[in-house]
Amino acid sequence: MATNSTINVGVFGASGYTGFETMSLLRRHSSANLVFATSESSAGGCLSDIYPVPWDIPLVAAADAPLQKVDAVFCCLPHGASMPAVIAAREAGVRVIDLSADFRLTDPDIYQKWYGVAHESPTLLENAVYGIPELFRYRIAETDLLANPGCYPTSILLALAPLLKASVLDTTAPIISDSKSGVSGAGRKPSLKTHFVEANENLSPYNIGRSHRHVAEMAQVIETLGGDSNRLIFSPHLVPINRGMLSTIYVTLAEEVVTDAVHSLYAEMYGHEPMMHILPLGQLATMAHTQNTNRCAISVTPVSSRQLILCSSIDNLGKGAAGQAVQNFNIMFGLDETDGIN
Amino acid sequence: MATNSTINVGVFGASGYTGFETMSLLRRHSSANLVFATSESSAGGCLSDIYPVPWDIPLVAAADAPLQKVDAVFCCLPHGASMPAVIAAREAGVRVIDLSADFRLTDPDIYQKWYGVAHESPTLLENAVYGIPELFRYRIAETDLLANPGCYPTSILLALAPLLKASVLDTTAPIISDSKSGVSGAGRKPSLKTHFVEANENLSPYNIGRSHRHVAEMAQVIETLGGDSNRLIFSPHLVPINRGMLSTIYVTLAEEVVTDAVHSLYAEMYGHEPMMHILPLGQLATMAHTQNTNRCAISVTPVSSRQLILCSSIDNLGKGAAGQAVQNFNIMFGLDETDGIN
Amino acid sequence: MATNSTINVGVFGASGYTGFETMSLLRRHSSANLVFATSESSAGGCLSDIYPVPWDIPLVAAADAPLQKVDAVFCCLPHGASMPAVIAAREAGVRVIDLSADFRLTDPDIYQKWYGVAHESPTLLENAVYGIPELFRYRIAETDLLANPGCYPTSILLALAPLLKASVLDTTAPIISDSKSGVSGAGRKPSLKTHFVEANENLSPYNIGRSHRHVAEMAQVIETLGGDSNRLIFSPHLVPINRGMLSTIYVTLAEEVVTDAVHSLYAEMYGHEPMMHILPLGQLATMAHTQNTNRCAISVTPVSSRQLILCSSIDNLGKGAAGQAVQNFNIMFGLDETDGIN
Amino acid sequence: MATNSTINVGVFGASGYTGFETMSLLRRHSSANLVFATSESSAGGCLSDIYPVPWDIPLVAAADAPLQKVDAVFCCLPHGASMPAVIAAREAGVRVIDLSADFRLTDPDIYQKWYGVAHESPTLLENAVYGIPELFRYRIAETDLLANPGCYPTSILLALAPLLKASVLDTTAPIISDSKSGVSGAGRKPSLKTHFVEANENLSPYNIGRSHRHVAEMAQVIETLGGDSNRLIFSPHLVPINRGMLSTIYVTLAEEVVTDAVHSLYAEMYGHEPMMHILPLGQLATMAHTQNTNRCAISVTPVSSRQLILCSSIDNLGKGAAGQAVQNFNIMFGLDETDGIN
Repeated sequence: MATNSTINVGVFGASGYTGFETMSLLRRHSSANLVFATSESSAGGCLSDIYPVPWDIPLVAAADAPLQKVDAVFCCLPHGASMPAVIAAREAGVRVIDLSADFRLTDPDIYQKWYGVAHESPTLLENAVYGIPELFRYRIAETDLLANPGCYPTSILLALAPLLKASVLDTTAPIISDSKSGVSGAGRKPSLKTHFVEANENLSPYNIGRSHRHVAEMAQVIETLGGDSNRLIFSPHLVPINRGMLSTIYVTLAEEVVTDAVHSLYAEMYGHEPMMHILPLGQLATMAHTQNTNRCAISVTPVSSRQLILCSSIDNLGKGAAGQAVQNFNIMFGLDETDGIN
Repeated sequence: MATNSTINVGVFGASGYTGFETMSLLRRHSSANLVFATSESSAGGCLSDIYPVPWDIPLVAAADAPLQKVDAVFCCLPHGASMPAVIAAREAGVRVIDLSADFRLTDPDIYQKWYGVAHESPTLLENAVYGIPELFRYRIAETDLLANPGCYPTSILLALAPLLKASVLDTTAPIISDSKSGVSGAGRKPSLKTHFVEANENLSPYNIGRSHRHVAEMAQVIETLGGDSNRLIFSPHLVPINRGMLSTIYVTLAEEVVTDAVHSLYAEMYGHEPMMHILPLGQLATMAHTQNTNRCAISVTPVSSRQLILCSSIDNLGKGAAGQAVQNFNIMFGLDETDGIN
Repeated sequence: MATNSTINVGVFGASGYTGFETMSLLRRHSSANLVFATSESSAGGCLSDIYPVPWDIPLVAAADAPLQKVDAVFCCLPHGASMPAVIAAREAGVRVIDLSADFRLTDPDIYQKWYGVAHESPTLLENAVYGIPELFRYRIAETDLLANPGCYPTSILLALAPLLKASVLDTTAPIISDSKSGVSGAGRKPSLKTHFVEANENLSPYNIGRSHRHVAEMAQVIETLGGDSNRLIFSPHLVPINRGMLSTIYVTLAEEVVTDAVHSLYAEMYGHEPMMHILPLGQLATMAHTQNTNRCAISVTPVSSRQLILCSSIDNLGKGAAGQAVQNFNIMFGLDETDGIN
Repeated sequence: MATNSTINVGVFGASGYTGFETMSLLRRHSSANLVFATSESSAGGCLSDIYPVPWDIPLVAAADAPLQKVDAVFCCLPHGASMPAVIAAREAGVRVIDLSADFRLTDPDIYQKWYGVAHESPTLLENAVYGIPELFRYRIAETDLLANPGCYPTSILLALAPLLKASVLDTTAPIISDSKSGVSGAGRKPSLKTHFVEANENLSPYNIGRSHRHVAEMAQVIETLGGDSNRLIFSPHLVPINRGMLSTIYVTLAEEVVTDAVHSLYAEMYGHEPMMHILPLGQLATMAHTQNTNRCAISVTPVSSRQLILCSSIDNLGKGAAGQAVQNFNIMFGLDETDGIN
């Protein structure tokens, strides 16, 4: 369908923040061509009806999306709602980047346990690839169904991966991530918790311990990388910021390791990654390091010879959602990996 | 009903911001005793279910409010919903401070025009007193039905009153108030406009010109004070702040007046008022001057010999709502006017 | 110096917000090549020492800037400090986009009156072009010294221009702009006024009336466009937002004009402008319309048959500074006007 | 010196946030009478010169403070600067509440190690009492020199105390406090880190691990309560909020304990404390629970049978500084403990 280098794409769920951010990024992309955008609540209208932008992008109902005209779709629908759109797209032979949680957990039973509904396509689930490029780039390049990771997992797994791959963690000690997220991570649907007056000048923990759904996908990847996922303790907090995420992660090493050697694990694994910013020893990652970018910034701070604090910063709508989705799209289609997101 | 100096009070509409603020102020009051608080959505529960406070104040439905046990009620319900509560309270012989708009407009036709429903008690309306203490203190002391003013009108009318009373305004020139309000002024009900991500890092005009409902009550008082209400132009803006209000007001004098003389009008009228803070010439009122207080701060700035800029600052939940309600309550019951709000 | 389509540029004053924003935009530009960046306080260091970015851009003292290697420079220095850099660049034959106020006022006496120092090069001043592309595009294309406008003037003049050019304003009535600016407009130098705790949850007017320096450049352009600059009243306010600017402007028409006709003036003048977003009647411009963009969004609201309210929104670092500077650069070098800023 | 129930007090360091907050609280106190307030930078002026309040409180240089006229002083000076003021006050027989760090560490060598200067009065240091009322009320009542705790230590020690006193912690496991503070905790002196544009929409860790000075006073109290202070890991973060503090604390129990039993430790120790708000199981403490109050709110959340997460919320200027200072003052003078701070 694509002529020459143009790749035709569609976006399901244009009215949410991840859908809007995806379209904003695609406007800067050198070869993606937006063919359709869907919104159930605003079908028949136009993007400028629901966002303060001058772009006259018509919105159609998902059922009317012309799948036959596109090479790929970005699914920015809520979990549960995403499954049928993904299934329809795959049946039409369209490659899918799914930003929901619907295809992240390879075991349909675990999906049902956490999300409360039976999975509608265990077969597709089996073939989906979990899309953190820095960890799984080769599998991403070949897949037709990309499960774009959650924001918290992206920030935490990128920080843990070098230690897990080097098998240097004390497997009996807890891995504690105290994470802070901007409010856009909660979506665009109004609620009391995200009402300005309630969220502003406030900071609230929620679903702390092992009760947040993102524990499931982090556990899956920690196991894949050789760790013990039962050690994970994860405490998300809502902070009065539009976009940004910082995970402060406390880990224990199996043996004493000199700090330079630990830092080298990060430098080696991520030194050539275009989207990774490993800070020099002595500096700390902040939300400002990555805001409005697709980067992940990580700092490594020793507390004692066996204890470390990792600070991992991403933009929850960038590397934590739409930015990473475009990065995965670029890999899937053999494009410059940073196109649209640099 | 009150024994000794205790005055028993009830609060209708405890779950909104003005209701909650009223109760917070009453806790510091030396003689008010809270007998009941109502909430339709949380009846049967307790205040600590809906606000992060340790106070075990039970919530009842409005229909179950024991009106016979109280001397006064604060009605913190939305307009329209307030009317029946006020009528019931007055029928029970209870004095009323109504924070809604339902009894502010003395003409029931004008009420219907702006609020879209017929007024249910034109008789009560006739007897209600519009409660800006610095303008109408003597009438307030004697009323049984106090219409607590809107936040914008309070900030604007207090700033205009000295000029109107001295008849120094050019009656052919516009009176322009460019007003900015914190988001709590929009209430506690979630909406897209007050969703954190939409309101934060944003500033939005709304209902500008002569289309905001508060134009009606301002027009009424401007006429009372001898001005021409048709000259009023009023532009409210939503700003990413929890509580606070600043009106920047542009007026033209009928004749050239030396600045000191204009400033003296303010000093004379408000110099002994406990809640008024008239800034020295050369200083400008900001939201910080009044935040979390019941004060109104006003600055006077000459632009030319006939043009002035007034900056008038209040806390929209303080002098703009609950604080002024308690001030009015104090006057109505012959108490120290600053009790609970100093 | 440029080979093929590459245009070599330098940035004076990389450590301030406008300098940093200019460099951020230039990174996305298809033909600009950053050759040097200066900072007196961080000379010898690198951009990543002073901003949370991974870019290894070395910083040199202004005196060491290799002017002979560049085709153009962006001067992002404070007023006063900019003059010698501009003079040196022009002596080296380098084209200049000056973001300071030093070359905006054509009359050196007026410059001295407002900025307190004598102008060092009245000759250059005479040849400088005030760079609002939508008003002065043809002159911009030919100049070697571009005076990039102030943020407030950009937002206000773009809103007034269609009315001034059509001569429909009542020249005896005031033109009132109540303007609100994000804090980045005050620069990066810490002060009590811009200390987080003082600015957050606060809103402050400052230099209201006719005392802000931007009155001078607005007056100059208003006269150029045929208006009476003495009628301008300008009240800036600081709002707790990082970037963004909204001017709410109150004007009086000479004669009654139907609203559609007024709106048409905007549609006709700006309909084909890539950076202008004229909102349909009934909508209001907010800061969100332009944040992180180079656009200007304008809404037109009738109050009565002769009174209008214009709301004009820009990003103070975008169209109000660095974005407009890049737009002017593109015009000066005959490039796609939106390169780097779309 | 006090007549009847009036207690005459002075405040050293009125221009900082803790000094200003102390004076604001004292205005509501029923028996404290402010006799003097000092400020080196604004001596000769008045409080309304440096804060947006109408209170005409004259400011004098510390050297001119009439110590002979007061019963007590609040020292709100920076560490180091506080020592001479405290020594002078004690020599004059005046009781002291010192909000600086100068008298918190009982060992002068440890003071010197963390604060870089030799202590000027080891004798006074020996007699100072560390003032967390809920832990050390009886000693506070008798002291003439009260060392008011740091904000972070208050939030963390109140949360740890029930577990330490019951000796239920695994003494080999880390005690991790991931703490978040509003910007007023950094004081009123402008800096790049606290510049609005840098702090807003950002969240930054700083001095994480064991490098923040508050580690020293926490270690001292943890040892007093029978814990192993070497296990403490403390990571402060700056959040874009004016006032508020939340510590999310991760601890391991020595043995499996049912959650109800752990929660009972808190209910028993703090159930009758007027300033403690122990949340029911299942709820989480947020900053909003304590903002603008003198309360500490604590929630207990089990992760597994041996792992707990404590969330401890205070207002950094309330229970974390000035509020607790007034509470200590009330105890020292045998007054109602909540006077001025309820």
